[in-house]
Amino acid sequence: MIHFSKDTIEQLPKIPRLNLINSCTGYKSANLIATKTNEGVSNVAIFSSITHLGSDPAMLGFILRPTTVPRNTYKNIKDVGYFTVNHITETMIIDAHHSSASYDENISEFNQTSLEEEYYDGISFPFVKNSPVQILCKYLNEYEIKENGTLHIIASIEQIIIKENLIQKDNWLRLDLENVVTINGLDGYCVPKLVDRFEYARPNVPTKSML
Amino acid sequence: MIHFSKDTIEQLPKIPRLNLINSCTGYKSANLIATKTNEGVSNVAIFSSITHLGSDPAMLGFILRPTTVPRNTYKNIKDVGYFTVNHITETMIIDAHHSSASYDENISEFNQTSLEEEYYDGISFPFVKNSPVQILCKYLNEYEIKENGTLHIIASIEQIIIKENLIQKDNWLRLDLENVVTINGLDGYCVPKLVDRFEYARPNVPTKSML
Repeated sequence: MIHFSKDTIEQLPKIPRLNLINSCTGYKSANLIATKTNEGVSNVAIFSSITHLGSDPAMLGFILRPTTVPRNTYKNIKDVGYFTVNHITETMIIDAHHSSASYDENISEFNQTSLEEEYYDGISFPFVKNSPVQILCKYLNEYEIKENGTLHIIASIEQIIIKENLIQKDNWLRLDLENVVTINGLDGYCVPKLVDRFEYARPNVPTKSML
Repeated sequence: MIHFSKDTIEQLPKIPRLNLINSCTGYKSANLIATKTNEGVSNVAIFSSITHLGSDPAMLGFILRPTTVPRNTYKNIKDVGYFTVNHITETMIIDAHHSSASYDENISEFNQTSLEEEYYDGISFPFVKNSPVQILCKYLNEYEIKENGTLHIIASIEQIIIKENLIQKDNWLRLDLENVVTINGLDGYCVPKLVDRFEYARPNVPTKSML
């Protein structure tokens, strides 16, 4: 085992430190956040920090560094109040990664990649076509994490649109059936396969498979 | 595609709602948080919300619902100020899942599972043996998410202990070399395999593989 002390980490050059700290917390969710300006310019950017916050009411959160790349996303969310979250599948990873490039705000990443906008009746916000899980979210609040100036954005889940084959017993979405990816660090894209699913754990009762 | 409206989600029975909302945000990190009481009783519990917050200073966060299961972990973190984060591998999933069972605070989950404590010179807090990435963290702060009463716990990364074979070019940790798992929903355990790793994305430059 190799030990990295706090001092060692602080003295690393920027890129090795970014790689180490971004990969040491484990696998991350891989999502495209799509937004639209009030002027109708759409925007799509990759995020790896979207996290479940609670089921009743249904809420999610993500971390945003206002001073770096996806600030168009933040501006649109604040201006318009809504955004969509779209899962990334294996065939989308090259374009999803490219969505992190810093294009001007009047340029839609949908025009710079093969990613396509998708619209549903009654919703004026773009989803990402062929994404097997698409979520319409409403901005609720933000908390500044004073320790490093990042923002924790809090949103309610307003609608979920799901490719039917993912929906299993008791509404569990089996993500590997559509090759949804997960992110390792800043830039590694991985495809998970299900190993097992377990029943609710109770003291002194052996763990049982649900499969 | 199947549409779940906000009303439909709110009216679902508890278990299908939990499954749907916990799996709709994508894959989650899979970690064991180990702590110790001031009286020396160790504790280990599974968490799926640990997220990178920043690299300089190195910080992570996770979501905790104080009124439900892993409250021993929270009490110990607040009392003692430190905890460890340990990646879960494929061979550990049965025991890792069982660590979510609600044992009394004077019972160590290390005694109720095959998970073993590991100690290093100069650190009095337990790590989880055979975990290929082990992180010593110091509690910094917590933010109450008023919208649902959860807590966002903020911690600094004080030390990282890594199985050597994971460390790749520029300190990227390639997690699939040790079969680190990711969680799908509340109870699905998946093993990812790397598909590709891409260079930093720049406008109008095609995405290039780093492999």
